[in-house]
Amino acid sequence: MITLPSTAVELIESGANAHLVTLNADGSPQVSMIWTGVDGEEIVAGHLRFHQKLRNVERDPRVVLSIEGTGANAAGLRDYLVVHGTARVVEGGAKPLLAQLAERFLGPDSGFPPPNAPEGWVLRITPTRLGGSGPWTSA
Amino acid sequence: MITLPSTAVELIESGANAHLVTLNADGSPQVSMIWTGVDGEEIVAGHLRFHQKLRNVERDPRVVLSIEGTGANAAGLRDYLVVHGTARVVEGGAKPLLAQLAERFLGPDSGFPPPNAPEGWVLRITPTRLGGSGPWTSA
Repeated sequence: MITLPSTAVELIESGANAHLVTLNADGSPQVSMIWTGVDGEEIVAGHLRFHQKLRNVERDPRVVLSIEGTGANAAGLRDYLVVHGTARVVEGGAKPLLAQLAERFLGPDSGFPPPNAPEGWVLRITPTRLGGSGPWTSA
Repeated sequence: MITLPSTAVELIESGANAHLVTLNADGSPQVSMIWTGVDGEEIVAGHLRFHQKLRNVERDPRVVLSIEGTGANAAGLRDYLVVHGTARVVEGGAKPLLAQLAERFLGPDSGFPPPNAPEGWVLRITPTRLGGSGPWTSA
């Protein structure tokens, strides 16, 4: 496990979309764009349905998140944060997490998730290694 | 092989960064953010060095590209394009391709790649399946 540097936490909490990579049963990669937040040492995401990505994580916990930054390096190449990690699926808790993330991604009073939404599942990712290019790799 | 719908081509050619997923020798995913263009039925990227992602493709040609769109669905969730494909590495040709892409990503007269840059390698991706969310999946 590694502790995320503050620059990485700031990017995640800025409301930037994350490309989540999981592994299908045949070893091929699966990608979904998701909302993420930080909870203690973990990165968290909420899911109202038991998507393919959650089935994948239960089979193989290796995941990668990739998030585009707002800065750029000296050559003009855009910053991005890559988080390699180990993920687990926890039942319940998606509704309050998504309500909190929706404020950041959709703005206040988005009405998401709707009151009748299920409790869903939370994906909890323990970061093990960072990559990409930006202040999080040059520390 | 599939033919990319015009909406997907437009997004790729808009200068949006692509998150490229390849597979490491141990089956874990590797992600790099890259510039891409469209050449005929293939998606192309230029590389001046023989990066890990190119070594990965030579071992296992299965790749995925994920690109954030600019639109959103009715719920406010951002569009994104996922391209599953089969990739191959072709020696040479990176310099003119990168010069062309640099105009889009860095603006005119960026001076990239520098005149002494090597010819490099071009990654050529044959799309096999689209995913994500946006006009390219609802056609």
